[in-house]
Amino acid sequence: MKYSPASPCREHDIDSWAIETDVAIVGFGGAGACAAIEAADANANVQVFELASAGGGSTALSSAEIYIGGNGGTAVQRSCGYEDSSDNMKAFLEASFGANTDPDKIDDYVKGGAAHFDWLVRMGVPFKHSELKQRAIVALTDDCLLFTGSERAWPFHLAAEPVPRGHNLQVEGDNGGPLLMRILTEQVSARERISVHYEARVLTLVVGEDGAVVGLIVRIDQQELAVRVRGGVVLCAGGFCMNEAMVRRFAPTYAEGLVPIGNPGDTGTGILMGLGVGAGVVNMHECFVTLPFYPPASLTYGIFINDKGQRFINEDTYHGRVGHAALAQQRSLSNRVYLIADVEAYGDYETINFLQAPIVGTGETIEELEAEIGLPEGTLVETLTRYNADAEAGEDRLFHKSASWLRRLEPPLVALDCTIGRGAFYPFFTLGGLDTLPSGEVLTAQRRPIVGLYAAGRTAAGIPRTAAGYASGMSVGDATYSGRMAGRSAAAAVLP
Amino acid sequence: MKYSPASPCREHDIDSWAIETDVAIVGFGGAGACAAIEAADANANVQVFELASAGGGSTALSSAEIYIGGNGGTAVQRSCGYEDSSDNMKAFLEASFGANTDPDKIDDYVKGGAAHFDWLVRMGVPFKHSELKQRAIVALTDDCLLFTGSERAWPFHLAAEPVPRGHNLQVEGDNGGPLLMRILTEQVSARERISVHYEARVLTLVVGEDGAVVGLIVRIDQQELAVRVRGGVVLCAGGFCMNEAMVRRFAPTYAEGLVPIGNPGDTGTGILMGLGVGAGVVNMHECFVTLPFYPPASLTYGIFINDKGQRFINEDTYHGRVGHAALAQQRSLSNRVYLIADVEAYGDYETINFLQAPIVGTGETIEELEAEIGLPEGTLVETLTRYNADAEAGEDRLFHKSASWLRRLEPPLVALDCTIGRGAFYPFFTLGGLDTLPSGEVLTAQRRPIVGLYAAGRTAAGIPRTAAGYASGMSVGDATYSGRMAGRSAAAAVLP
Repeated sequence: MKYSPASPCREHDIDSWAIETDVAIVGFGGAGACAAIEAADANANVQVFELASAGGGSTALSSAEIYIGGNGGTAVQRSCGYEDSSDNMKAFLEASFGANTDPDKIDDYVKGGAAHFDWLVRMGVPFKHSELKQRAIVALTDDCLLFTGSERAWPFHLAAEPVPRGHNLQVEGDNGGPLLMRILTEQVSARERISVHYEARVLTLVVGEDGAVVGLIVRIDQQELAVRVRGGVVLCAGGFCMNEAMVRRFAPTYAEGLVPIGNPGDTGTGILMGLGVGAGVVNMHECFVTLPFYPPASLTYGIFINDKGQRFINEDTYHGRVGHAALAQQRSLSNRVYLIADVEAYGDYETINFLQAPIVGTGETIEELEAEIGLPEGTLVETLTRYNADAEAGEDRLFHKSASWLRRLEPPLVALDCTIGRGAFYPFFTLGGLDTLPSGEVLTAQRRPIVGLYAAGRTAAGIPRTAAGYASGMSVGDATYSGRMAGRSAAAAVLP
Repeated sequence: MKYSPASPCREHDIDSWAIETDVAIVGFGGAGACAAIEAADANANVQVFELASAGGGSTALSSAEIYIGGNGGTAVQRSCGYEDSSDNMKAFLEASFGANTDPDKIDDYVKGGAAHFDWLVRMGVPFKHSELKQRAIVALTDDCLLFTGSERAWPFHLAAEPVPRGHNLQVEGDNGGPLLMRILTEQVSARERISVHYEARVLTLVVGEDGAVVGLIVRIDQQELAVRVRGGVVLCAGGFCMNEAMVRRFAPTYAEGLVPIGNPGDTGTGILMGLGVGAGVVNMHECFVTLPFYPPASLTYGIFINDKGQRFINEDTYHGRVGHAALAQQRSLSNRVYLIADVEAYGDYETINFLQAPIVGTGETIEELEAEIGLPEGTLVETLTRYNADAEAGEDRLFHKSASWLRRLEPPLVALDCTIGRGAFYPFFTLGGLDTLPSGEVLTAQRRPIVGLYAAGRTAAGIPRTAAGYASGMSVGDATYSGRMAGRSAAAAVLP
């Protein structure tokens, strides 16, 4: 029989159940691992089905910073002298996601976050009680706490008191993801109630007469097996950035010229399985995207411009917010985006950069640079004249870049071409998925829970809803937390 | 029993069928009427269920311009001296909708459009073989052909030869919608195979064991009746702009400060019913939105600016594209949007306007106006100095407004506040819905047809996909055409 994720199997078509369990988990990344641990610790028997030959998912490929705080602050925030009330964190997250916000999820996360951090510590995840002060994408030292988002930048600093919430694991280099998943995998292995099946492709869900999810079909060793669940199925199968057709259909803004980041299993299968049983999907058009222009932090002294020579963002904001704005420019009225920097910052760029934007202009004068990159005459001169006057006065009256990142941009200057398709690195992954409650219960389009179905991580639409409000660590924070909530809910649904 | 659109009824729960028919149509607006006529003309028996006490839907409330062409041109286009190849129209539509494009639907529409126009004429819809040359939102004369989109504006004129495709009905004033629906209703009434039920609320779909749609539940006279279909159910129940919760969830950009336009039944019920049986939905985040700043056409000589004094659009483009850009400004980095006009244009504005934007500044000098509306010093001066120089030279080097709409903006000048929530009229309606084939077949998220289910009009994601590429008449053109295709497909699905 030919199974297809979006077309569920009917219970009466199942001849026999090969496996019966309390909770079945689809995907063994950060969300799936946490769901399994939490379900087992609630006395449920758990079967985990992982497509790949090993667990880890996209979490293992990430830096695994954890964006977390609230409740007065995590142990590390408090050690480093920061208080972080739940209200303050909530105000920041609501400002970050605006109309896209899921207020219930945010409310739950800012209240449960500090306790989630303690849980990670109990699992054995190491965090040093130290702070890294530089502007960075990831901590390359083993220090823990850093600002990973736009907390100190306009307009966010007006909405909430800036507090660092990125928690880096105690490990040198960009190695947080592998370490986190090794620890979580050990925790899974230590629990007898959990069985993990690798190279196990879940093909579709099984629904009962009343529309409830009662199991799934999985292919293991070329055998298609029916799995019956007493509590529920937890979909932790990642997002859909690796499914080009789905990106084109649901998030078309991101379909051309960007680079998907994730694991090969991020093909949206979990989302399709949910849709097949009547789930609602939300936020499908939004992705994380970035222009990773720092390090070097000194490029923050530069300015981004469009092909009219206009600035369009405060450059001291999070790199993902800059990427989102640069993409918006190019999807509407600008064919080009440039980063204009002085030679001092460019020297740093030659030493280290992830941006990979080619240098396309150097000018001994502004006029020369303007002509070299083909801007309408006088536009860059006007923009820089105004910017330099504002830099001198210590106030960016147009875009409100912080005074600490203002310095006159004096020739010679360089232009880095940040236009999509001309070399600059624009990675993306998806932020849309199944609509869920904070408990992980999957909802219909009318927000009624579908009995027996749960989702977590990027299979669900979680806390982070747009690159314009993203901060590093939000997705791993959300995945590990939402995984736990979903695992707990599925375990609680098992009849005694 | 409590029914809910997104939770279908199971066939085995139906005790008896009150009505059996070949084709059931949900909603009697433009799409539903055309679906009914076409299905009946293919020898199917048809039952139409309409929520309201009378038919018409949002089509009856609209101007009912029909955006149509291709195949060498409609009879009216050819009479007025325009050729319009299908390839040319396709190039325009693809440029209009960019990454959001559904290429199959566009291909089908540009090939079938001229014949669809002939069909409307055969139904008795009157079109005068004449052209209206002024820049207008709707024709208030009984003339037919007009440019209703951005065909002549940058960048569209580079992608396709500009041809007018808006077809206004032969009726004085803004009365096309009522006339179109009166004619279509008469055609429906004249067909014995069609029964129309008013005040009939379809509650949910009925699905068979294999997931196919086999009927629906409708409430008529406080009775809940099961309707069995042999061919299919055609969902023509409109969009979801009147469902605030759905707008907030699926199209959050449009949830605050805008005015929904449509009929009270545009609550997304058809889309929810499709989702409940496993349909895929696409383009849910996109809406038509506009800033109806013309008439008077002379305001096109003005410029739109943000709160940094920057222009952001060529003002000679379609008002919906301007509305989309103005909204984008306000959803990202600008708290205000203004339209700067000279006193000549403002005089026209005082005579006629739909915009309702309040005047918030008048300046004998540019500096005075700039200060009055609180722009950073020098910004408006720079923008206008450049604009005026470009106007004099006859070339808008930044935004490419056509030379015919360039004239120096000399003080005294006025500023109209086009900021959301300060008076300016920002109407919107939704452009997302069920994913369908050009045939009207509703697809799962993996694009497999759901047996027995069809959709048309704004319940489906059709030709128009974003306000940034919209032209007046696209939605009624698409609704009437897609209604016919869906009605024909459902009739053809009836087993002989």
